[in-house]
Amino acid sequence: MTATVHTLPRSDASLAPILALTADGMNHVNAIILDRMQSKIPLIPALAGHLIAGGGKRMRPMLTLASAALLEYEGARHYKLAAVVEFIHTATLLHDDVVDGSDMRRGKQAANVVFGNPAAVLVGDFLFSRSFELMTEDGSLRVLKILSGASAIIAEGEVDQLTAQRQLETSEERYLQIVGAKTAALFAAACRIAAVVAERDAKIEQALDDYGRNLGIAFQLVDDAIDYDSEVAESGKDKGDDFRDGKMTLPVILAYARGSEDERAFWREAMSGKRTSDEDLAHAISLIARHDAVNDTRERAKHFANRAIDAISGFPANPARAAMIEAVQFAVARRF
Amino acid sequence: MTATVHTLPRSDASLAPILALTADGMNHVNAIILDRMQSKIPLIPALAGHLIAGGGKRMRPMLTLASAALLEYEGARHYKLAAVVEFIHTATLLHDDVVDGSDMRRGKQAANVVFGNPAAVLVGDFLFSRSFELMTEDGSLRVLKILSGASAIIAEGEVDQLTAQRQLETSEERYLQIVGAKTAALFAAACRIAAVVAERDAKIEQALDDYGRNLGIAFQLVDDAIDYDSEVAESGKDKGDDFRDGKMTLPVILAYARGSEDERAFWREAMSGKRTSDEDLAHAISLIARHDAVNDTRERAKHFANRAIDAISGFPANPARAAMIEAVQFAVARRF
Repeated sequence: MTATVHTLPRSDASLAPILALTADGMNHVNAIILDRMQSKIPLIPALAGHLIAGGGKRMRPMLTLASAALLEYEGARHYKLAAVVEFIHTATLLHDDVVDGSDMRRGKQAANVVFGNPAAVLVGDFLFSRSFELMTEDGSLRVLKILSGASAIIAEGEVDQLTAQRQLETSEERYLQIVGAKTAALFAAACRIAAVVAERDAKIEQALDDYGRNLGIAFQLVDDAIDYDSEVAESGKDKGDDFRDGKMTLPVILAYARGSEDERAFWREAMSGKRTSDEDLAHAISLIARHDAVNDTRERAKHFANRAIDAISGFPANPARAAMIEAVQFAVARRF
Repeated sequence: MTATVHTLPRSDASLAPILALTADGMNHVNAIILDRMQSKIPLIPALAGHLIAGGGKRMRPMLTLASAALLEYEGARHYKLAAVVEFIHTATLLHDDVVDGSDMRRGKQAANVVFGNPAAVLVGDFLFSRSFELMTEDGSLRVLKILSGASAIIAEGEVDQLTAQRQLETSEERYLQIVGAKTAALFAAACRIAAVVAERDAKIEQALDDYGRNLGIAFQLVDDAIDYDSEVAESGKDKGDDFRDGKMTLPVILAYARGSEDERAFWREAMSGKRTSDEDLAHAISLIARHDAVNDTRERAKHFANRAIDAISGFPANPARAAMIEAVQFAVARRF
């Protein structure tokens, strides 16, 4: 049943099955998102719409719907809660881009560039507040506990990442803690809440949490690998953003650990912000390639991907399970 | 019973009664605040502590406790919820200071100056998330609805204020809408939730909401008056911040409406950010004094103060009611 795990990454893996599985449901979710991001203050839907309407894979709400389908949930509560998950994610993206001074997001100008940092901070706050209003309308204290806890952990992870920025001594362990908090906590919560609305037991909740958490870690590892992948032309974010921000992601951590004294001297200068030119970035990419650090980051991602797949291997085989497994395979195989 | 309303402002009014009334309770609240602002990420309590331990009147949690005392509530739930109110307030202060680029807060360097804007944004997010965790622990969906709704309205008010910045045509009506959202909504909610924990009916909830909302508006009006008061030496924030930020507060709105063509030309330049020197500020203060705009802003504040007092005039006369009335009188009489 879990034989698939040994063939990772499947380069032909696709999001098509999970997209098809959740297409109808996502129409409901998108309608709720559009409806509930409105406000009598016109700047709020304008700014929120820039980001929300501006694409993005909507992975997280899709995972809530897929998890509900896995459990053969027949109700409608998960639509609103999936919108909640996307609102929380959007709020953190808005704040992240302010924190990082990002220029690009999802292939277009970041909201903070178009509308300014103040508006991006405040509209993030609005979406975050609105997400709690929606949760309260749903009325499950269990869901509120899961998502308020995840939100606090996300913020902790973001602060931790900020603290680790430009710190060459950041270990792989600390990096994984940061990724687990800033990215994987919301993936885990997005899946877990499906078990709550489907009124399943703690074991099922935990299995879905494990699936989401490990997928989230794998997803972020691949994201971080792509930023230094010499074979990848572009990504939604600006190539080299992590490098110029001095983010201690796993490709850098591995290349630094394996590097010569000269290479380490380069990394120290680069991560402190003294080397940010295109040539410096090209040199960084070449060092990372020399030490196989992109490939090994992807290998680490496969480890977590396998754990994600195993977490749901005990569920009955249904189309949702197949789609969720293929989504994991896609996450580790993707090159954009 | 409400004869006091006609003697506003009572210049000898003091916060002493409400401080005495809530002193024991505030020890519980402060212990919860200190305990729950902790995190394994050291920057979080460091930054939060800078602001939270850095003084401030703790008006909002005090109002939750005073409202509970007014209703002779005997339980302990209000301590945690008062801490929630202060966390929400602290989160908005952190984000406000980033949005405004503030240098000073509560008479010392603002957190964004000491720790940087990124940390201030993210720790604000943490405190906001933590506040929802605490509410969820309390477990009242009614309280969650009130405070998540207030949080969304606060964010809307902040965005609206940002939109109105440097817009000379901002009307008194719009200004009052902004104040009602960005400041008064949390005052209203802080008082209203006491009625929920005391399990009182909708009419009592509404009366406490009215008290808090009107007090909040009066409080903000006086705050805005103080920033241009020629008789006031200093306030917790930097004198002239509103002027330099081009904030359309009521003293400016009134002075502009009543000004000559020359004066209006000055205001247009000043609010657009072209006149920000100390001399310009002194000129602005003189124009505002010429048109009695500080005094009239205080007069407007008295109107809302009277409404706040009337809102609780139907409650049995007890020490809490007396302290809450005197707190209103203090709010409009204060000169700092």
